[in-house]
Amino acid sequence: MSFDVQKIRSDFPILSREVNGKPLIYLDSGASAQKPRQVIDAITTAYSGEYANVHRGLHYLSNLATDNYESVRATIARFLSAPREDEVIFTSGATEGINLVSYGWAAPRLEAGDEIVLSVLEHHANIVPWHFLRERQGVVLKWVEPEADGSLPAEKVLAAIGPRTRLVAVTHMSNVTGTVVDVAAIAQGTDVPVLVDGSQASVHMKVDVGAIGCDFYCITGHKLYGPSGSGAIWIRAERQAEMRPFLGGGDMIRTVTRDAIDYADPPLRFEAGTPGIVNQIGLGAALEYLMQIGMDNIAAHERVLRDHARASLRKLNWLNIQGDAANKGAIFSMTMQGAHAHDLSTILDKKGIAIRAGSHCAMPLMDFYGINASARASFAMYNTTAEVDALVEALTFCRELFA
Amino acid sequence: MSFDVQKIRSDFPILSREVNGKPLIYLDSGASAQKPRQVIDAITTAYSGEYANVHRGLHYLSNLATDNYESVRATIARFLSAPREDEVIFTSGATEGINLVSYGWAAPRLEAGDEIVLSVLEHHANIVPWHFLRERQGVVLKWVEPEADGSLPAEKVLAAIGPRTRLVAVTHMSNVTGTVVDVAAIAQGTDVPVLVDGSQASVHMKVDVGAIGCDFYCITGHKLYGPSGSGAIWIRAERQAEMRPFLGGGDMIRTVTRDAIDYADPPLRFEAGTPGIVNQIGLGAALEYLMQIGMDNIAAHERVLRDHARASLRKLNWLNIQGDAANKGAIFSMTMQGAHAHDLSTILDKKGIAIRAGSHCAMPLMDFYGINASARASFAMYNTTAEVDALVEALTFCRELFA
Repeated sequence: MSFDVQKIRSDFPILSREVNGKPLIYLDSGASAQKPRQVIDAITTAYSGEYANVHRGLHYLSNLATDNYESVRATIARFLSAPREDEVIFTSGATEGINLVSYGWAAPRLEAGDEIVLSVLEHHANIVPWHFLRERQGVVLKWVEPEADGSLPAEKVLAAIGPRTRLVAVTHMSNVTGTVVDVAAIAQGTDVPVLVDGSQASVHMKVDVGAIGCDFYCITGHKLYGPSGSGAIWIRAERQAEMRPFLGGGDMIRTVTRDAIDYADPPLRFEAGTPGIVNQIGLGAALEYLMQIGMDNIAAHERVLRDHARASLRKLNWLNIQGDAANKGAIFSMTMQGAHAHDLSTILDKKGIAIRAGSHCAMPLMDFYGINASARASFAMYNTTAEVDALVEALTFCRELFA
Repeated sequence: MSFDVQKIRSDFPILSREVNGKPLIYLDSGASAQKPRQVIDAITTAYSGEYANVHRGLHYLSNLATDNYESVRATIARFLSAPREDEVIFTSGATEGINLVSYGWAAPRLEAGDEIVLSVLEHHANIVPWHFLRERQGVVLKWVEPEADGSLPAEKVLAAIGPRTRLVAVTHMSNVTGTVVDVAAIAQGTDVPVLVDGSQASVHMKVDVGAIGCDFYCITGHKLYGPSGSGAIWIRAERQAEMRPFLGGGDMIRTVTRDAIDYADPPLRFEAGTPGIVNQIGLGAALEYLMQIGMDNIAAHERVLRDHARASLRKLNWLNIQGDAANKGAIFSMTMQGAHAHDLSTILDKKGIAIRAGSHCAMPLMDFYGINASARASFAMYNTTAEVDALVEALTFCRELFA
């Protein structure tokens, strides 16, 4: 199918609203994406006519809800080109997925002095769970710095791996600089298990976990145009077999007595309690929508946005851009001498332009760039080059205001 | 406001649908409740016009979403009569809430030989997280059996508390027998911290956590007529201060460096990553809806259903009811000689009646009653006495079939 950005925009109800009397220009999809009517309708349909709890019922609505819910596992497997459907574990988002790996796989296996290699590009979601292991059991965090342009050569990550390294945890795309990391080169360059945080990358490019060769790959639904509280992590079966349960509750057990528990087989073993049934059904609708458009088409459109934004922003010699790797995604972190990032966000908001200001849950990277905060414009498939121009114009207005 | 069951029914779109050619009679709300249009509309409104990520933005939509989301904390506090709003922690449901207490409060404090007192009435959500502590660190589980009628005298629970008891974990209402436990008498009869699983009780009666005097009280949104993946746990501030973080990620930190973390103050300390924003907004709508009807009115209506069902089912001398405590909720667990619970559910389904068959995530209680499974009819505020009659008629049909 050919890519028609106006047709796509018309699928997103919120994009036709105004903010502060101006048409909304939403450049904050890196924090969370807006939702197409296909997703909203899937939620409404589920709650209005097809809802019950899953797995444990035998009546019509329970079977229907179970089928609708469980079919999303196959959709996610297809979206990630996962070799096996039962390697997909439902989560409430990337944070729960990475915590599952930290608590379920790493905590019982790593000893004091064992190392985890991670990059300075990481989002706090892929940092804090590993800090827990440092605080609680003496695991050592080995940090790999990006180059000044934000790129992270696979060789640098591989070079940090030593005899005590038990895990590499790395992002597939930085949520600040847009840096795309060659995670396949990393995963294929070491026998150490590799966890990839795909929260940003999976939204903007075709992902093939089998081809990457990693062990853990997490996604988060709310960035993928899906509902709050949806998500998944793909975990290679061999790693699943090494994991102990994380969350305890219903559905993840075979039998419970007063004295003992027999746990269910994966993936249910790692999915405790009533799951986010309708959230995941909505995520399924989002992924079907993305696959119908085609991830390659989306990536091509966003390359146009990136190139136009990069060329335009480069001309603003009073603007600093953090990160400028050649193949980066359409995410731009910016600082302006004399104007705080929060001021930029507030002023742009008056013009209907939504950007984010702050540390973007990536304080070690802020540190690396010697800043406390930046303004970030993150583009998505529904953005246009005209919106890039509006951003540039608004930044120029800020410059005039603060100069 | 006066209670009008037909008016309430008209708020639930799914209740006007048919199943197997018959009007739906939904008696499976104990597993998960249906959703009123007020909740569905709140979700649609949030996604269609008021959506962005929360907490970290400065633009209009982010502020709006943050206000909508954070206001639910106050709604939950009001719903539970919690003395302090910041004692409410958002979770994806009761399972996550109890795991938060197990991992965040109990795991770092309890030593081998320390005891947790829990009842045989508990749902697996309030069992498995404690079994983890038994498996991993030698904590001892002390079980308190109910009486034959399913009641659980507070004195029996208090009598089980010894010098090594560090926690009492008990349900407020059994999801199988409907038993209501006098958790106030338990909490006020001991200095040991008390966790109450309010997953069922909070749906059917007015809860006042301050009056109960417990330390932890969890609720789950999907049973409260709210969205998938919504919920909360109230944790007394003194207990929060004793807890270490559980899930790690964005939003729960103040600063992150390569070497250290400074955690945010509660409640954010215990809420990692992008939360279930719209799920919780939907839960807020559900709780406002319930409070507008009035929990006491709901309880009164459900007492009528319970009394009518109890009287009618007692006449069926070929039917065994598990649990018959005087003040029980409108939940009935049933077995019939010669007919498997699954068969009952399947046959009733043909008549449009949704009941659940299985162990109801309460295997120790099934064991106590010497059964593997039962058929469970669980009533909610939208059920009618005519639906009770339809259940009785359908069970009689089953009896004739299997006799």
